[in-house]
Amino acid sequence: MTANTEGKMKALRKMNPGKGLQLVEVDIPRIKPQEVLIKVIKRSICGTDLHIYKWDEWSANRIKPPVTIGHEFYGEIVEVGSEVFHYKVGDIVTAEMHVVCYQCYLCRTGKAHLCENVVIKGVDGDGIFADYVALPEMNLWRVPKEIDPELASIYDPFGNAVHTVMAGPTAGKAFLILGGGPIGIAAIPVAKAAGASMVILSEITEYRKNLAKTMGADYTLDPSKDDVPKIVKELTHGEGADVVLEMSGHPAAIEQGFRSIRKSGRYSLLGIPAKPITINFAKDIIFPGIQLQGINGRIMFDTWYQMDQFLISGKVDLKPLITHHFKMEDFEKAFEIGLSGNAGKIILE
Amino acid sequence: MTANTEGKMKALRKMNPGKGLQLVEVDIPRIKPQEVLIKVIKRSICGTDLHIYKWDEWSANRIKPPVTIGHEFYGEIVEVGSEVFHYKVGDIVTAEMHVVCYQCYLCRTGKAHLCENVVIKGVDGDGIFADYVALPEMNLWRVPKEIDPELASIYDPFGNAVHTVMAGPTAGKAFLILGGGPIGIAAIPVAKAAGASMVILSEITEYRKNLAKTMGADYTLDPSKDDVPKIVKELTHGEGADVVLEMSGHPAAIEQGFRSIRKSGRYSLLGIPAKPITINFAKDIIFPGIQLQGINGRIMFDTWYQMDQFLISGKVDLKPLITHHFKMEDFEKAFEIGLSGNAGKIILE
Amino acid sequence: MTANTEGKMKALRKMNPGKGLQLVEVDIPRIKPQEVLIKVIKRSICGTDLHIYKWDEWSANRIKPPVTIGHEFYGEIVEVGSEVFHYKVGDIVTAEMHVVCYQCYLCRTGKAHLCENVVIKGVDGDGIFADYVALPEMNLWRVPKEIDPELASIYDPFGNAVHTVMAGPTAGKAFLILGGGPIGIAAIPVAKAAGASMVILSEITEYRKNLAKTMGADYTLDPSKDDVPKIVKELTHGEGADVVLEMSGHPAAIEQGFRSIRKSGRYSLLGIPAKPITINFAKDIIFPGIQLQGINGRIMFDTWYQMDQFLISGKVDLKPLITHHFKMEDFEKAFEIGLSGNAGKIILE
Amino acid sequence: MTANTEGKMKALRKMNPGKGLQLVEVDIPRIKPQEVLIKVIKRSICGTDLHIYKWDEWSANRIKPPVTIGHEFYGEIVEVGSEVFHYKVGDIVTAEMHVVCYQCYLCRTGKAHLCENVVIKGVDGDGIFADYVALPEMNLWRVPKEIDPELASIYDPFGNAVHTVMAGPTAGKAFLILGGGPIGIAAIPVAKAAGASMVILSEITEYRKNLAKTMGADYTLDPSKDDVPKIVKELTHGEGADVVLEMSGHPAAIEQGFRSIRKSGRYSLLGIPAKPITINFAKDIIFPGIQLQGINGRIMFDTWYQMDQFLISGKVDLKPLITHHFKMEDFEKAFEIGLSGNAGKIILE
Repeated sequence: MTANTEGKMKALRKMNPGKGLQLVEVDIPRIKPQEVLIKVIKRSICGTDLHIYKWDEWSANRIKPPVTIGHEFYGEIVEVGSEVFHYKVGDIVTAEMHVVCYQCYLCRTGKAHLCENVVIKGVDGDGIFADYVALPEMNLWRVPKEIDPELASIYDPFGNAVHTVMAGPTAGKAFLILGGGPIGIAAIPVAKAAGASMVILSEITEYRKNLAKTMGADYTLDPSKDDVPKIVKELTHGEGADVVLEMSGHPAAIEQGFRSIRKSGRYSLLGIPAKPITINFAKDIIFPGIQLQGINGRIMFDTWYQMDQFLISGKVDLKPLITHHFKMEDFEKAFEIGLSGNAGKIILE
Repeated sequence: MTANTEGKMKALRKMNPGKGLQLVEVDIPRIKPQEVLIKVIKRSICGTDLHIYKWDEWSANRIKPPVTIGHEFYGEIVEVGSEVFHYKVGDIVTAEMHVVCYQCYLCRTGKAHLCENVVIKGVDGDGIFADYVALPEMNLWRVPKEIDPELASIYDPFGNAVHTVMAGPTAGKAFLILGGGPIGIAAIPVAKAAGASMVILSEITEYRKNLAKTMGADYTLDPSKDDVPKIVKELTHGEGADVVLEMSGHPAAIEQGFRSIRKSGRYSLLGIPAKPITINFAKDIIFPGIQLQGINGRIMFDTWYQMDQFLISGKVDLKPLITHHFKMEDFEKAFEIGLSGNAGKIILE
Repeated sequence: MTANTEGKMKALRKMNPGKGLQLVEVDIPRIKPQEVLIKVIKRSICGTDLHIYKWDEWSANRIKPPVTIGHEFYGEIVEVGSEVFHYKVGDIVTAEMHVVCYQCYLCRTGKAHLCENVVIKGVDGDGIFADYVALPEMNLWRVPKEIDPELASIYDPFGNAVHTVMAGPTAGKAFLILGGGPIGIAAIPVAKAAGASMVILSEITEYRKNLAKTMGADYTLDPSKDDVPKIVKELTHGEGADVVLEMSGHPAAIEQGFRSIRKSGRYSLLGIPAKPITINFAKDIIFPGIQLQGINGRIMFDTWYQMDQFLISGKVDLKPLITHHFKMEDFEKAFEIGLSGNAGKIILE
Repeated sequence: MTANTEGKMKALRKMNPGKGLQLVEVDIPRIKPQEVLIKVIKRSICGTDLHIYKWDEWSANRIKPPVTIGHEFYGEIVEVGSEVFHYKVGDIVTAEMHVVCYQCYLCRTGKAHLCENVVIKGVDGDGIFADYVALPEMNLWRVPKEIDPELASIYDPFGNAVHTVMAGPTAGKAFLILGGGPIGIAAIPVAKAAGASMVILSEITEYRKNLAKTMGADYTLDPSKDDVPKIVKELTHGEGADVVLEMSGHPAAIEQGFRSIRKSGRYSLLGIPAKPITINFAKDIIFPGIQLQGINGRIMFDTWYQMDQFLISGKVDLKPLITHHFKMEDFEKAFEIGLSGNAGKIILE
């Protein structure tokens, strides 16, 4: 049941507070009875990783160095613990990196993604920018044969997009997506596949607007030039968008969302604003009967089945979202391109 | 506010119990204050019309001759009553033909399609196989400019399909549709547009199977030759269909639906069986936690907005479903083709 | 079909911009074909009426004098229009005072309470602080024989409470209600009747806290003295309230709601804040997965059936909420008591 | 971490096919790493146990002797496995006895109660009619201090009742419950606590009808004498019951349910009919738009939280449902009383 997994491995770690990461040699992790050891094949860089790399305020408060970062990947199981019953050596898997308690109220009522006791691998514990990672059986997701496994390495952000799109009715609805980072872009084909009658993206960066068109956006607006609410109303017979997905965290975008949404519309919030925001509850929420919902993570594991189905059915083509590939040694180049905004998803092999 | 609408018109009527219909001359209807008079432009033949034409047991119990039949159409408003406020002469409209009371519990809680006091025009009262029809303002549906108005003449069955498909979650779900009559066929592109990962149709007639492929079915099975449940399970990794839409009314098909559905699946029933059916509640409903739901009519008017959106967005192409056109004078040819089963929707101009 | 309803009647009107109202003589209204004329028997004073009486900023912007105010009442039908089919002279009724268009998207999809073209009687048009009022048949609500009709005169605010409580799951849920005005107080027995495991009211005024206890609150907290979030967490095993109903419009209360709610909880907003409010989207909505919903009006007419059922079944006792009765001539005393906050509902006979 | 739990214990076992059970001595079970050993304090007899005792057709097909039966209980943890993290020796617990795989589609999408690979302890594996039982940590439910632990010994059937009642809207709804076995009786106070406006029980046995009244039924009907559908319609203003809970499995009762339900009503099926049943799909399900749903088990663990809340809040009083207590040695007396129908729940101490 074991491979040759004793010894050392390479890992990309935050060793001390401050900017940057270091590629160092560490022990290959030892697994617990309910865990498996996975040889990581491909990894993807998340916006969270960029925050940690830059060492912003959020990172300084949350990260306790030294820690191996990274939480988007796929790999092959090379060892299974004695209390693992549904996976074997050789299985190709990705994983939900929120390790949850399965005993709190939220875990036991279908909301494990909001677990009170969550440990996020790659943030609170060692992640997957390494040769190997140890993970509990309960967190694994088998990559279906029909899917290019490279796509499984971006299931984490793809799942954020699927979770947000699917958090209410979709078919026949006009969607406005605020922000064209990788999750906002991924939400475009998902909304279309789920029956959206129209998908409008609001994003400043030219690179991302072009990527959005490739991924199927019906309209792309530039909020620095276009009157977003006015155009959205024109495109929707004066009604406004049925669904607004906020994926930028930007105060001006959030305000435009309120100006662009239809009465009784759904306003799903995923992007994290850096600061408190002032809103007019009466005019923006109460009188128009808006449903505002906070979204994070992926529903465990409804969202994961949905991801599989969107890809297997061919209704969603994620390929164009992966725009760059690097060796793990060249991580600094990779992170700098990520920070520039001129990229979709970046793979570290 | 009026056109030259006094006088006589042609109407296709059931004059007496028994087979057939007669094309006769009758008075143009006089409108009430809340009604409009519509010049009918195109009409479509419904399965219900075929039943009335044949004069089967159901018809003999329900229809009180003389009555003008027909309830699928579009037309132009030529006169509006004094208490009509939102429509004017010249508007192109179709209509919900269930004239409801708006005062019963069902009408007042979003279920007017189940109204206790419904009068169905073309069944219980004069319908649209005539030059003119009088209808209440509350029943009208304005045909959007973006839509070929001929398609509006089949909004009634299209709405049955949309109502059935949309009666539960759709995105990422595998659908099995039992029966390839016009409503079953219309449900195919609707399910796909609403995000279905797979649509399988079970139907015996070769003509209809071919039409189903044109309309986007992923698989068409012939229940007289294929082992439907076995194939459905193979296509769905052994799980079964997430959603079964019963649109045949046939006892063998209903049984196959129970054999083909996934645990906790949705089984939506629209087709009307001629006789009682014996089912194993324990094995087929209770242990697997099945949701069985009776569907009829169209939700007033959620379904109608959904129809507009599916067509305007281009996600549903209904054109191939209209397979024949006849003059109203040639109604007998039209009805005989309808009875043969070798037709999609048949238009009377 | 008519009573002796020609001639003059008394009406309490805002004649000019500025504080106060005038009791004057005006023509009895003439009904349209779809309307009935109702002799008003009892009226109740709403917070909105107090705003109009005071002539605050909102009133100055919205109200166009001269207008008869008031929108909570019950009465007896004394005349019915020629196109009214379900009511007759002598029927005891109350009414939904939002006169809606029944033709916009919201009206036609079960959200008439958010109608784009609403006219609110007693605000935008003549209301019920008068001897008679003319209303459309579609707005009427028959008072069941089992219910004391005086209670029907507060169906409007009772309906706000029922709508807010019932806007999500209720059974077994711990409720925190912020604000003990009449709607907040009415929400207490409604939540209990709908299965709430616990109802906590936060309110400063002693009079209202006592009334809340009479109406069944499990706990009443004084936000000027008590640490509301801390106590709510203690009462709920550290989790927080499952449901928060915001019925004060006060910024400090809204903030306390965010501090007191459980992860993934429902936060329903009915109280109208006077100004924009600053909130921390990340910490208060996104990370904890909160569902924030704007509520107004009453669902037409689901909420009305629910009101009937709560009262007929005896599960809700609204009687103690009516604390004062005045003659219409003594309206100034009535309004001053209303403004003092030391009252539940005040009836004008 | 261990108690003196080696050695022998008493267990009530089905040793061979055929009627009856034997009280024998067996080894105390050894726990796996994720399991705990529980000293059983009180047990309750389920209808399933009566079937196994009698050895009917279902039992003969399902049960593989020798096996210790029984699955309703509470007890104290006396030993915990090395991979158990949230419970300790001395904790008072009951448990969900469906041991599920947590890896199938149903387990991973909130429907573990329908797990494809379930093992039911006390049916498919050794149960709790013994001094000790070994169970996985994931199945445990901590008994809150506020609850009499004897009530925890009937959480399994209480949970069936809660699951069935809560499977759709409850507040303000009129309920008809068909069948007054312990689950049907338990559903009465649950429905009332969840806001039912009326609860009608249909049951032949006088003993059970009396118990139903004690537990809060508004009306009890005897289907052998009363015209159930006629009376239900009279009690509901001619509409019929909003919700029908089928808890008898009797064909005549199921038929009465269809006759008594309101259009678009919810018909929840828990009782297991012994044979297939003939129903009129058109008249009973499709035209009236009925929602028929199969229910089994308890939602893991939403239902369990609901049970706690109903009891802790005092909204449900289950005490009267426990009508008999016996020593385990007197099991034959206990089972014979159970078979007579003249009992609520019977406890074995």
